[in-house]
Amino acid sequence: MRFDLIVRGRLVLPHATLPDGWIGVVGERIAAIGVGPAPEAARLHDAGSAFVMPGFVDGQTHATSYAGLPGFRSTTRSAVAGGITTLVDMPYDNPEPLNTLERLAAKAEAVACESVADVALYGTVAPDQGVETMAALAEAGVAAFKLSSFESHPVRFPRIPNDRIFEILRAAAPLGLPVGLHNEDQEIVRATVASLRARNLQTPEWHAPSRPVAAELASTASFLALGLAAGAHAHIVHISCPEGFALVRKFQEMGAQCTAEMCAHYLHFDAARDMERLGARMKVNPPIRENSLDGLWQALRDGLVDFVSSDHSSWPVDNKLTPSIFDAGAGIPGLETLVPSFFTDLAAHGAEPERALVRLVAENPARFFGLARKGQLSVGADADIVVLQSGPHVFRAAETQDELNWSPYDGEQFDARVTATFVRGTLVWDGKTVVGQPGHGRFVRRERR
Amino acid sequence: MRFDLIVRGRLVLPHATLPDGWIGVVGERIAAIGVGPAPEAARLHDAGSAFVMPGFVDGQTHATSYAGLPGFRSTTRSAVAGGITTLVDMPYDNPEPLNTLERLAAKAEAVACESVADVALYGTVAPDQGVETMAALAEAGVAAFKLSSFESHPVRFPRIPNDRIFEILRAAAPLGLPVGLHNEDQEIVRATVASLRARNLQTPEWHAPSRPVAAELASTASFLALGLAAGAHAHIVHISCPEGFALVRKFQEMGAQCTAEMCAHYLHFDAARDMERLGARMKVNPPIRENSLDGLWQALRDGLVDFVSSDHSSWPVDNKLTPSIFDAGAGIPGLETLVPSFFTDLAAHGAEPERALVRLVAENPARFFGLARKGQLSVGADADIVVLQSGPHVFRAAETQDELNWSPYDGEQFDARVTATFVRGTLVWDGKTVVGQPGHGRFVRRERR
Amino acid sequence: MRFDLIVRGRLVLPHATLPDGWIGVVGERIAAIGVGPAPEAARLHDAGSAFVMPGFVDGQTHATSYAGLPGFRSTTRSAVAGGITTLVDMPYDNPEPLNTLERLAAKAEAVACESVADVALYGTVAPDQGVETMAALAEAGVAAFKLSSFESHPVRFPRIPNDRIFEILRAAAPLGLPVGLHNEDQEIVRATVASLRARNLQTPEWHAPSRPVAAELASTASFLALGLAAGAHAHIVHISCPEGFALVRKFQEMGAQCTAEMCAHYLHFDAARDMERLGARMKVNPPIRENSLDGLWQALRDGLVDFVSSDHSSWPVDNKLTPSIFDAGAGIPGLETLVPSFFTDLAAHGAEPERALVRLVAENPARFFGLARKGQLSVGADADIVVLQSGPHVFRAAETQDELNWSPYDGEQFDARVTATFVRGTLVWDGKTVVGQPGHGRFVRRERR
Amino acid sequence: MRFDLIVRGRLVLPHATLPDGWIGVVGERIAAIGVGPAPEAARLHDAGSAFVMPGFVDGQTHATSYAGLPGFRSTTRSAVAGGITTLVDMPYDNPEPLNTLERLAAKAEAVACESVADVALYGTVAPDQGVETMAALAEAGVAAFKLSSFESHPVRFPRIPNDRIFEILRAAAPLGLPVGLHNEDQEIVRATVASLRARNLQTPEWHAPSRPVAAELASTASFLALGLAAGAHAHIVHISCPEGFALVRKFQEMGAQCTAEMCAHYLHFDAARDMERLGARMKVNPPIRENSLDGLWQALRDGLVDFVSSDHSSWPVDNKLTPSIFDAGAGIPGLETLVPSFFTDLAAHGAEPERALVRLVAENPARFFGLARKGQLSVGADADIVVLQSGPHVFRAAETQDELNWSPYDGEQFDARVTATFVRGTLVWDGKTVVGQPGHGRFVRRERR
Ligand SMILES: [Zn+2]
Ligand SMILES: [Zn+2]
Ligand SMILES: [Zn+2]
Ligand SMILES: [Zn+2]
Ligand SMILES: [Zn+2]
Ligand SMILES: [Zn+2]
Ligand SMILES: [Zn+2]
Ligand SMILES: [Zn+2]
Repeated sequence: MRFDLIVRGRLVLPHATLPDGWIGVVGERIAAIGVGPAPEAARLHDAGSAFVMPGFVDGQTHATSYAGLPGFRSTTRSAVAGGITTLVDMPYDNPEPLNTLERLAAKAEAVACESVADVALYGTVAPDQGVETMAALAEAGVAAFKLSSFESHPVRFPRIPNDRIFEILRAAAPLGLPVGLHNEDQEIVRATVASLRARNLQTPEWHAPSRPVAAELASTASFLALGLAAGAHAHIVHISCPEGFALVRKFQEMGAQCTAEMCAHYLHFDAARDMERLGARMKVNPPIRENSLDGLWQALRDGLVDFVSSDHSSWPVDNKLTPSIFDAGAGIPGLETLVPSFFTDLAAHGAEPERALVRLVAENPARFFGLARKGQLSVGADADIVVLQSGPHVFRAAETQDELNWSPYDGEQFDARVTATFVRGTLVWDGKTVVGQPGHGRFVRRERR
Repeated sequence: MRFDLIVRGRLVLPHATLPDGWIGVVGERIAAIGVGPAPEAARLHDAGSAFVMPGFVDGQTHATSYAGLPGFRSTTRSAVAGGITTLVDMPYDNPEPLNTLERLAAKAEAVACESVADVALYGTVAPDQGVETMAALAEAGVAAFKLSSFESHPVRFPRIPNDRIFEILRAAAPLGLPVGLHNEDQEIVRATVASLRARNLQTPEWHAPSRPVAAELASTASFLALGLAAGAHAHIVHISCPEGFALVRKFQEMGAQCTAEMCAHYLHFDAARDMERLGARMKVNPPIRENSLDGLWQALRDGLVDFVSSDHSSWPVDNKLTPSIFDAGAGIPGLETLVPSFFTDLAAHGAEPERALVRLVAENPARFFGLARKGQLSVGADADIVVLQSGPHVFRAAETQDELNWSPYDGEQFDARVTATFVRGTLVWDGKTVVGQPGHGRFVRRERR
Repeated sequence: MRFDLIVRGRLVLPHATLPDGWIGVVGERIAAIGVGPAPEAARLHDAGSAFVMPGFVDGQTHATSYAGLPGFRSTTRSAVAGGITTLVDMPYDNPEPLNTLERLAAKAEAVACESVADVALYGTVAPDQGVETMAALAEAGVAAFKLSSFESHPVRFPRIPNDRIFEILRAAAPLGLPVGLHNEDQEIVRATVASLRARNLQTPEWHAPSRPVAAELASTASFLALGLAAGAHAHIVHISCPEGFALVRKFQEMGAQCTAEMCAHYLHFDAARDMERLGARMKVNPPIRENSLDGLWQALRDGLVDFVSSDHSSWPVDNKLTPSIFDAGAGIPGLETLVPSFFTDLAAHGAEPERALVRLVAENPARFFGLARKGQLSVGADADIVVLQSGPHVFRAAETQDELNWSPYDGEQFDARVTATFVRGTLVWDGKTVVGQPGHGRFVRRERR
Repeated sequence: MRFDLIVRGRLVLPHATLPDGWIGVVGERIAAIGVGPAPEAARLHDAGSAFVMPGFVDGQTHATSYAGLPGFRSTTRSAVAGGITTLVDMPYDNPEPLNTLERLAAKAEAVACESVADVALYGTVAPDQGVETMAALAEAGVAAFKLSSFESHPVRFPRIPNDRIFEILRAAAPLGLPVGLHNEDQEIVRATVASLRARNLQTPEWHAPSRPVAAELASTASFLALGLAAGAHAHIVHISCPEGFALVRKFQEMGAQCTAEMCAHYLHFDAARDMERLGARMKVNPPIRENSLDGLWQALRDGLVDFVSSDHSSWPVDNKLTPSIFDAGAGIPGLETLVPSFFTDLAAHGAEPERALVRLVAENPARFFGLARKGQLSVGADADIVVLQSGPHVFRAAETQDELNWSPYDGEQFDARVTATFVRGTLVWDGKTVVGQPGHGRFVRRERR
């Protein structure tokens, strides 16, 4: 047998880390994994002592919120530069969300034309739309459904009222797909923002108070209760406070099927420490809060976090630099920092950061979204492979691939960087340049339900 | 020493039931409790072998929803005929709710003029009103605050949005008062009702489906989460499904201060069995559901029920007999059936029904609402005394004292009936006639917080 | 009606504390309780502003371990001087334990001749004895059964092997009586003591290490497991470490019926602080440990303690003053300190010490041992009444009534003292002198099972 | 690169099952795993559509209890015929147990001479022996320590008193090794057996009653409590009743490090159904009980079982066929039935039996005993490979390799059989004959602690 590609290095396999290993690729798949002298191959990529890891799976990307479907081009360039070979894109596309087979087809087409990385897709349901389309979308391969209890945009990112949420959860139950929620209570947030505006308290430090823990917990609790009543899998796409993770656990104890997702920035920034310096550059929703880091890391250690994502949003920084913090766009680019920053933070919190990284940002999200051939270095899987070189590296937003060129992490020193990324056997990032072509990426269907 | 009144009989004291006991009343208070030969007294009421119990405390009455403040006259006549010597009246008065000191004064005045029984009062806060008044109302003696997540009436019984609920809970926390919730999600209920109307499914059996368990759980969960975030005492004023009681327990395990109230009709009727016969006559909100009785009795046995109330609503039956079940008024009279029907149901579920009855309908609600001198036969307490004669008795709505003269319990045989009621030492019901005078009742302030 | 005795003062009733109250006694029972001007009576005892409390129930006394059955005389004199009107005596009598109807009769006779206070009785079963007698003993009124996993004396206080413990638990289950355990693993204790003796580590600070937490937990866990398997009520008569209380809770969660008793000295002394000063004078088994006070008080606050007792042992101090701590008798006199010291310790840990005192040392043990007319100031109960005068009082062992005249509490200042004790309506302690006569006390049978 | 051996077939990898896969072996290790066309190799073993699985790890074998150290010869022949490539041998060797470095060396030598399979070793500590040797044994590679609360033999398999158990647990804690317990209370078992003998109730159906659940729970609870107190890893080597698994979970909730092992026969036989037919042939300790199957399978589903073993004992059947069941040897051969019978039972209880089998009989025990290169088909691991052919196969004890030639499973039809076994790359069982040589097996040291 002869391989098209061999990648050598320190393999981070599901159950062990193996120096001096190799991955043998035939076509787009991992055909073999071995140690010792590598077999012959058309090409050899020798990573030396660097980590060879599965391509990462970002469970929450907003690639197409700003520039629309063409947004995949720059977003997936950024993804592969950050070691992410599959992103799960949110349905809140600009100008219209993914809620029909037609839009799914269009988005899959955009992936096929523009994307360098592979892309799985969330679907959604519009407020005035029947739930019949959900089965068709599931059949066509969407990985999950997404809803919001908060209106960020009336068409693209609307609030879904509770009656519709319940109806959608009931429709999702027999399909076996999770339903994710952007979990902020609209009434509390809007009233609090209005009150702060009225008092002219509009500087960045008022962002977190404007969206209090109460808003998050109320929305989370209500959604989990509806999931319990519907017998559906209710998923909270971002939790910014320890109480939220405890709440998910309590519903699990009641017999509910529910899960909790963490975003990497909640484990990195502290509003008390960083807000003055970063201002709107770290505005996300739900907000990064003060003094929550210890509790959130404890939740991670206690096994309450199902997976970790970037919640990458492709806003130009201009969108952030408004006189009032409340007018600034929420969301930050995160695809190029997710892996190196989380690796760095994990290393600061314990040994073997590479293993937790692979579990929480590759293996678990791949399983969650039913992407059977993603998230692991294992024989038969797609040859999505990332080389992570440990050692100090200063991250420069100016050098990023997302055409946004700003980041709250700008100038931070990480403990590692991505020096090569392969998507289905093809090198798409060589550590300096995106060498993959738009159109290499594919729409990945959910397989397991 | 000489007593003004002695009541003799089978005393149901807090920790024991004592045949051949007596209660010695001086003025309005219990001055002594004894056994054996009774001391001299101006008057003697000898109950023979009947139970002598503390006056009952109905923790949820809507006396003034229909006829306004004068409604206390007939409602409290009904109360004392049912053994209830203190009712805790909801704030949703007709035409305007109790949300200011002025209205509190007016309502207290109405109690003083019209009421035969004693009355504690819930306050509320209007949607557009500041929370400053809450401290003044607490100081003036309201027993608790009430809110609703569902609009029954735009002025009298409005939906309070979540931002206001949270604000009110935060204001209540330092006052130490519970905040009760009518717990139905408005969006789910309205959408479901609209859908059923559109399909012309408007007969009574569609009432329970129109307000599904999901609506109740979503509202309950959201409110409990806000209570947790606010550090306040969140109370659910009626739970119609076992899952709701489990939910309260889960929040308690998280450290929240929260409680759960049961209404007697949820432990008595089953929509599957009774709806065809009773129709709108058993329409209450949240609805009586199908096949929930076993789970609810189990919740009671498991100690998940803090107290049991009537949720008495003084609707004329005409208000119920509408072509569409959705136009029928919700709520049923319950003051004359609470004690005998719950006694009967408890007897069917175990021994010593008189002890559970006193605990759940006198002792516990009195403690919950901070009514220090109510709910127990104990020295120093108000001489609120009820004689309950066991033995079969057919309940006839035509003979009730509430001027409504209808009831879903009409014609049922109970195991006991109230043959005498004393309010603060004065006989107000002699088993056949209300002999107490309007104006005997008093506004009772919350004492303990 | 006319009372034989009226006691006036600040009544500590089950649910409230009432200044200016009175207890009316007819014969041996409380015939009435009142407030305000007291009725006429043959005798009046006016306690002024002092607490009038129920007679206390010591759930664990060893009155007859040393002097045999005549030991009741001095022990019960001490009891009433300490406010204890009922003691539950352990079965390990000198020279032979209470394990037959004959010995029960003899012990009841000794109570009738010697005792000033009332006495309930534990029974036991000898290692070589059938369990048939247990039903007869239960029928004859023993309050509970007692076993030990450690041999203190081969005949009087033997170790019961596990097969017998299981057989006894199975026999107790249908009788409804609790089976209490002296919970120390014999093998661990004996081996540890032997090892310390061999190393000549025999000074008092080696007492606690000689009976490690492990010995207590192993014995406790094994016994609870046998109780679970037998469907019996397993009771641990003394737990000296927080883990032990947690263990009882875990077995309760598994569905076992089990309970945990605390002795007052574990909540008062700390070996790290007091052992050097007191030496063998604070030798008890299981030992008072170092730095356990915080955890034990937390267990009390968490509701893990069913009741609190003295574990009074009537050893002359000579029995303690041995060259080796391991030869010193274990056990301390406690009847005259239980109430004032625990009141003082409760006051140091929170408000209203009188209420927790009455609950944990009167109401709860009376209910536990099925003593229906003990433990409460309530109408119909026995007129066991104690006057507790708050205010500083230095406790002097030289002034005690137990003919032992030593105590580890000697010279401590308490916040209260007992100034009068009535047993069934008769004054037996006037604050200075025991005025009750031997033979006034009675054997009290278990009533409730 | 060139492989020494390729095994092709349906690979059961840790996270997926892969048809058409291959394992490439170089020397004794798995050098590569692949799919599709296999690379060149010196030898090819093509399993077709049969499962290719990791060699199984039996966590509890008694190879040397009967015949002494030479017992490894027949026992490991039986092991490899049953797909077991590593067995963890108990220390209760005949005539003397493994409790010194000398005996460890002798046993390792016996493995090296006699064994076809690899062998990890338990150590133990004699009742009169210091614990100093434990560190040396751990250093020399024993995988765990074993104790018993029941004396099966005074020298070989003695009861360890609780003081020694505690001492041993404390010594084990810093070594990081688990301490396993044969968990039966000696007093209960001996007394019950004696009682049954006295009543001449000695037929096989009296075996289970002679060793009641109570005996198992008491011993288990006491040991877990000592482990908690010692901060050690306490392991229960066999639990025959659902309550035992619940108990381990409760101690885990208290913070104890403890684990629970299941033996395959407890999930297969039911005394109520099988004892009459099998008699002493299914005598094991703790006994197979009546009607426990449902509860034990539920414990397995609930994740309470850490791994599953055979508890293989190499008794000649003569040893079983005694007039009294109490004189019969306890223990059954199990190495050739463990994998096929458990596969069959798993298939009857759910889908994908091969995955649960690999997890519970390979992956988990290998991790538990720190055998880093065992229990998984993964690159770098030892090339311990088993081919399991599904399809009906009647098991015949007469054809077994253990020189015992009896089994309670004799004549049962299984859903699969082992058609090839490789130990470190060498074929040792070809489906019909043991082709491996004594001396191929090695002593495997614990690596991870
Ligand atoms: Zn979001
Ligand atoms: Zn998002
Ligand atoms: Zn309501
Ligand atoms: Zn109501
Ligand atoms: Zn003791
Ligand atoms: Zn004792
Ligand atoms: Zn064993
Ligand atoms: Zn074994």
